[in-house]
Amino acid sequence: MKTWRVGIVGFGNLGQAAERSLKQQPDMRLAGVFSRRRISHPNYMPIALLDEGQAEVDILLLCGSSAKDLPEQTPHFAKRYNVVDSFDTHAAMQRHFEATHEAALRANKVAVFAAGWDPGLFSLMRCLFEAVLPQGQSASFWGPGISQGHSDALRQLPGVKDARQYTLPAKEALEAARAGKPVAQTQAHKRLCYVVPEEGADLKQLEHAIQTLPHYFAGYETQVVFISQEELLQKHASMPHAGHVVRHGLTQEAHAHQLEFSLKLADNPAFTASVLVACARAACRLHQQGATGAYSLLDIPVGLLSSRSPAELRQRLV
Amino acid sequence: MKTWRVGIVGFGNLGQAAERSLKQQPDMRLAGVFSRRRISHPNYMPIALLDEGQAEVDILLLCGSSAKDLPEQTPHFAKRYNVVDSFDTHAAMQRHFEATHEAALRANKVAVFAAGWDPGLFSLMRCLFEAVLPQGQSASFWGPGISQGHSDALRQLPGVKDARQYTLPAKEALEAARAGKPVAQTQAHKRLCYVVPEEGADLKQLEHAIQTLPHYFAGYETQVVFISQEELLQKHASMPHAGHVVRHGLTQEAHAHQLEFSLKLADNPAFTASVLVACARAACRLHQQGATGAYSLLDIPVGLLSSRSPAELRQRLV
Repeated sequence: MKTWRVGIVGFGNLGQAAERSLKQQPDMRLAGVFSRRRISHPNYMPIALLDEGQAEVDILLLCGSSAKDLPEQTPHFAKRYNVVDSFDTHAAMQRHFEATHEAALRANKVAVFAAGWDPGLFSLMRCLFEAVLPQGQSASFWGPGISQGHSDALRQLPGVKDARQYTLPAKEALEAARAGKPVAQTQAHKRLCYVVPEEGADLKQLEHAIQTLPHYFAGYETQVVFISQEELLQKHASMPHAGHVVRHGLTQEAHAHQLEFSLKLADNPAFTASVLVACARAACRLHQQGATGAYSLLDIPVGLLSSRSPAELRQRLV
Repeated sequence: MKTWRVGIVGFGNLGQAAERSLKQQPDMRLAGVFSRRRISHPNYMPIALLDEGQAEVDILLLCGSSAKDLPEQTPHFAKRYNVVDSFDTHAAMQRHFEATHEAALRANKVAVFAAGWDPGLFSLMRCLFEAVLPQGQSASFWGPGISQGHSDALRQLPGVKDARQYTLPAKEALEAARAGKPVAQTQAHKRLCYVVPEEGADLKQLEHAIQTLPHYFAGYETQVVFISQEELLQKHASMPHAGHVVRHGLTQEAHAHQLEFSLKLADNPAFTASVLVACARAACRLHQQGATGAYSLLDIPVGLLSSRSPAELRQRLV
């Protein structure tokens, strides 16, 4: 079995989880941790090395911030290396694909983008479910889990010292989706905010400001719970998440079918890193087969994600 | 959009459901129904035509019996046509693959095999789940739904006039699998048998014979319910099914994650046909791209199953 040499770029939560995931893989080894700031790690290398020469890696796992780093980093590093990222801004996906695809094509490299759970596994399920039940409707639900974007929005509000926002799927909406009934987006989720107020803040006014915040909370059932900084750090430091993709479809009148994928994660970055690493294996194999360009999980045969051989997969899993 | 011309070979439950599924596809049309016996259908053609010349089809959906027809038919027709089947004998999968792969390679055709829900979607999930959580355990559960094999086994017993066997997943075993606890195969399912006895049969003895039948019921919690032929036909004529693929895995100690795929089908052959048709589209596209040989769902990018273009998929589903 070939051993793929893997570089990790960025060493926050995701990068550190990727290192742990690599230890579970029989066919991969850590070849370098590339970081802008100097870190204490036996495999540390300055990120600038990647531009100077060809670092001895088969693939780079891009573990920087999806919003701040990846739009530049992914197309940039695809000019020299096979890369995989977990870019997650749905609205900017096409632009990210185009820039990355062009760079990877020119360099004869493979780039896998949007490799996480949503986008990622959820994208794969939405596509698969619709393809096998073309006449029907799908719905995606997220949570219970912390939304980073909504937590950030809370922390921007005057009077808020710290905060965590949990997104919760509404049970009634989930049941409606399973039964093929229409689900309004604002009815599908509830929002639970744990907020540490600044000293002297008007709590009643703050609760109102949160519940009416456009784009984030207005229109949603939003509960605000004020707690102390200690309690926030103690009870809300972990990063669990969960979600569902549901499809209800008909093959003919009176023949209704239901498909559902659900996950429940103890730690969001740890699982995302695990998906990223499986996709890195697929990228290396695609490149070995002569493929070039940018791929999402929809473009990759699932068997390539597994460390097992095709014959073993047929024997054990088909 | 290209319109793929599809031939259906065999016109039982599966073939008839495939015809209905084709009507839901914007890019496929029925080009012929090939059957050994003469049937009343505007597109009927004798099956012998397929051997005489090249029938004007882009792909054949092989809808005969998995046990009796497909082991011969799939490799046979792969010598002249792109084909897709829902071969479902796990134990004979490798042999079926080899015969089909060799025929398709020689003829520069594409054959997709084992395209249903198990094998098929369940295989895909088992592979995907293990790849993204390599340290963990998976379990598959089937039912509530009728098992054809077990119903046939009942009907072979002396004293049985007719019968249907429902496989039921054991709730406790499903919960254990979700929690990552070991599940014994005989504990994972219960068996519920609706049996029409021959006149004068000794019911007590018959129940005992069923519950101790090796390979089928011995070791399982098996309930036998004796009913009349009328009641059997009235209450147990439909073919619903259901199932779950569950994985519990760790990315590190104390970080446990759960993945689950579940389906609930109003009509088993109707859904299987719908998967078969989506795989036929993928087979046509793979062939158009220059691929040859035999593919399972693990070898096919999921995006190829969808009638949408890659750009549309990125926009709407990634």
